[in-house]
Amino acid sequence: MPAKLDHEARRRDVSAAVWRVLATEGFGGLTLRAVAAELNATTGLVTHYFPSKQALIVHALELAEARTRALVPPTENARGLEALKQALAAVLPLTPEATELNRVWVSSWDAALADPELRIMEMSRYTRWRARLKPLVLQAQQDGDLPPGNPNDLVAGLAAFTHGLVVQALFDPRAFPHKRLRQLLDAHLEALTPRRG
Amino acid sequence: MPAKLDHEARRRDVSAAVWRVLATEGFGGLTLRAVAAELNATTGLVTHYFPSKQALIVHALELAEARTRALVPPTENARGLEALKQALAAVLPLTPEATELNRVWVSSWDAALADPELRIMEMSRYTRWRARLKPLVLQAQQDGDLPPGNPNDLVAGLAAFTHGLVVQALFDPRAFPHKRLRQLLDAHLEALTPRRG
Repeated sequence: MPAKLDHEARRRDVSAAVWRVLATEGFGGLTLRAVAAELNATTGLVTHYFPSKQALIVHALELAEARTRALVPPTENARGLEALKQALAAVLPLTPEATELNRVWVSSWDAALADPELRIMEMSRYTRWRARLKPLVLQAQQDGDLPPGNPNDLVAGLAAFTHGLVVQALFDPRAFPHKRLRQLLDAHLEALTPRRG
Repeated sequence: MPAKLDHEARRRDVSAAVWRVLATEGFGGLTLRAVAAELNATTGLVTHYFPSKQALIVHALELAEARTRALVPPTENARGLEALKQALAAVLPLTPEATELNRVWVSSWDAALADPELRIMEMSRYTRWRARLKPLVLQAQQDGDLPPGNPNDLVAGLAAFTHGLVVQALFDPRAFPHKRLRQLLDAHLEALTPRRG
């Protein structure tokens, strides 16, 4: 195998090992040593790809970001409240992939709150998420499916409700089975819908 | 100083150092070495009080629990929706103490998701929190201030909304100043209130 291909293949192996450690141990367990053990390799090999703990964390966050993007549902077939419901449901831990991703993101908050650079990255992720939800909230308001008022406040509240459910479900999946999570989201959006008259 | 008093005083010093490390570095930065450095002492001294990393984490969680209990507002002067609003507002990062505590709890989720014992502890904390909110939700339903329906679902949704706001505010305090946090909570409870007719 040419050296370049070999390098790329090895890089993918290392990257996959980073994800496996992350999904089981969280950021607190993500060390050069743990990744090396997962690979059955030396710490030296891992250091070749990630010269520092910080580089390893940044790569882990990039992996999580790419996997999260892949989960965002296409909303061409829906608009307004229905599209909003789909976008929020996609964040809930309703599939093994979404559960794993949520577990990784929630676990990243410890490192992100302690490091100024990571903190800004997470702040920006939240800003981007709210910006993606906003046009859907505006449509739902125009359709009379959400109350009038500041759309930014509605967006922040819906993001809050969704992430707050995620955390409770991660710790207590038996009390928050998939069906209940969907019902809670539906009932919440319904409770916000102004009565027609 | 008698040996026993000396021991107790030293224990308080160590405990205070654990909290200072936690409040600035989070659980990811909470190591025997970091506590020793904060105390200007040897790691050996800290090991005397906390024989393992796990013992250190459990003590840190006990400290957080005690500080959280001290922040719970007395609700004798209020009932129903008003008491509920006070109970939820007490969780929001509206004071330096509440902000520090929230930062510690959110940071604890990384360790708690990775460790079965800590996971159960956090699951139980959530169960206790929801159990404290439930009578207030029931009163608010009786008063017609919250919609009828399963009170457990309303409680889970309100806990979700509140914790989800906490996380956004921790990462972006400028976008979520105290006044906006209070308004978001008030507007959310108002949006859930059934129209009187």
